[in-house]
Amino acid sequence: MRHQLKCRISKSLLDTLKAEVERTGHSLSHVVGDALSSALGMEHHSLFQVSTSGALVQGVYQGCMTVSDLKSHGDFGLGTYDGLDGELIMLDGHCYQAGADGVIAEAEDNWFVPFATITRFAADQSAEISSITSFEAMKNSLDALRPSENIFAGIRIDGVFEKIDLRAACKAEPGEDLVAATSYQSEFSFEDIAGTLVGFWTPTFAKTLNVAGYHLHFISADRKKGGHVLDVTAKQLSASLHFETDFHIAIPETKSFLEADLQGDPSTALDIAETGSARHR
Amino acid sequence: MRHQLKCRISKSLLDTLKAEVERTGHSLSHVVGDALSSALGMEHHSLFQVSTSGALVQGVYQGCMTVSDLKSHGDFGLGTYDGLDGELIMLDGHCYQAGADGVIAEAEDNWFVPFATITRFAADQSAEISSITSFEAMKNSLDALRPSENIFAGIRIDGVFEKIDLRAACKAEPGEDLVAATSYQSEFSFEDIAGTLVGFWTPTFAKTLNVAGYHLHFISADRKKGGHVLDVTAKQLSASLHFETDFHIAIPETKSFLEADLQGDPSTALDIAETGSARHR
Repeated sequence: MRHQLKCRISKSLLDTLKAEVERTGHSLSHVVGDALSSALGMEHHSLFQVSTSGALVQGVYQGCMTVSDLKSHGDFGLGTYDGLDGELIMLDGHCYQAGADGVIAEAEDNWFVPFATITRFAADQSAEISSITSFEAMKNSLDALRPSENIFAGIRIDGVFEKIDLRAACKAEPGEDLVAATSYQSEFSFEDIAGTLVGFWTPTFAKTLNVAGYHLHFISADRKKGGHVLDVTAKQLSASLHFETDFHIAIPETKSFLEADLQGDPSTALDIAETGSARHR
Repeated sequence: MRHQLKCRISKSLLDTLKAEVERTGHSLSHVVGDALSSALGMEHHSLFQVSTSGALVQGVYQGCMTVSDLKSHGDFGLGTYDGLDGELIMLDGHCYQAGADGVIAEAEDNWFVPFATITRFAADQSAEISSITSFEAMKNSLDALRPSENIFAGIRIDGVFEKIDLRAACKAEPGEDLVAATSYQSEFSFEDIAGTLVGFWTPTFAKTLNVAGYHLHFISADRKKGGHVLDVTAKQLSASLHFETDFHIAIPETKSFLEADLQGDPSTALDIAETGSARHR
């Protein structure tokens, strides 16, 4: 059953729409329906990303998209803020900042973001994960829930954490590279804390664009504490995975991005920056 | 001046549309306008890609998208067909196949494509290129026309070619990798031939996803001959470049893609396969 849509659009848009109908031979309703389905994320799963991990490694932290624009691409994800000012966590449509002290603030819509990965989360696969003694152990449990190494996955894990080790980036000096900037990041832990892990699994073939493998941020159930996850211990967790076959990158048109030397493979630098200088190496 | 749009859409789409209006606080017209602008490619330049170059190197040639679907993402681009059966060239909205003999056929809308890169071409930069003595010399001329190493560029070059060396892929055996499959590709040359080069410049940071650097196919002005460009000599050419900051990859959900080992860097294999086994190495 189809319903009437009535609204007003610009002449140039109407002309282009008519030309598309003419060109494709599809009906106006078909073209409008396709465009809306796609824009509203109904047609297929889509992963939206701002900038590249390689740019971040080179110190290209200048915000190029607002939180408001980011929200138009989904309700779930992670990233950082202008100047590497803390960790970005998007959950249930809200966008949070974990500051260097692990304290959460809700981001304003006009804040700028230099790097983020966002999706409209809808679970394809769910499972309970019991008795996690480390981040590595949790990764192994998640490995078993993914159907392929070659598709992206959004990952949401809810539960009470016996102990969770986090870090949060501190605002960097302009031009400072990621390894240098994260060498003085703050690290902190919480015990017996309810909350959610928010993140992604990225295939190796996208390692110059995003953090390959697992990348998870944490936010407490009371939305007061959070950060980038370094290690985790838990008895019982609920994991949901959302698989992604549509990957969309918005490349910044900032001077710093356009002029950056992005020839190298950022994996090693990312590994040092993401896992903390004193562990996991 | 805004105009009335009237059409019929499904109830589920209408409900989602209303929820989006509610969620964002934007007007119905704004949400519909944004969706249409985006779908019709009016808002920003967008580069659409099916599969990855790494998958092609591993012999994942199974078509996963029809020519008809490909056309909905643009009017200009290149790729290959199911089973590596010749070179794909899309120009002015037509989609062509250069067979192993260099003879062009127009592709049927229901043909399948395993890998392609497509855009809606609109020149941002144009220039005349005079007296080209080699592919390398042409690349140097094109380098001067690009504003950054870090954004994608669609490239269209029209003119009369004194000599153009081409190759076309031959249908591969299932599972055969790209280097093996292109080792017996046919190579051929044309002299004093009018036509168009169609292709892209891809930043190094996307080298596991597409062919880094320049990648050009040729089609003659009479749409009868074409192939993948190996070398070129010309007196006077007209070049147009279309810059791209929005990169969109559709990952195949085929069994062969999901199960492929895509851990490696495909650059070296691509270099051998793309430039011809007997030259440019």
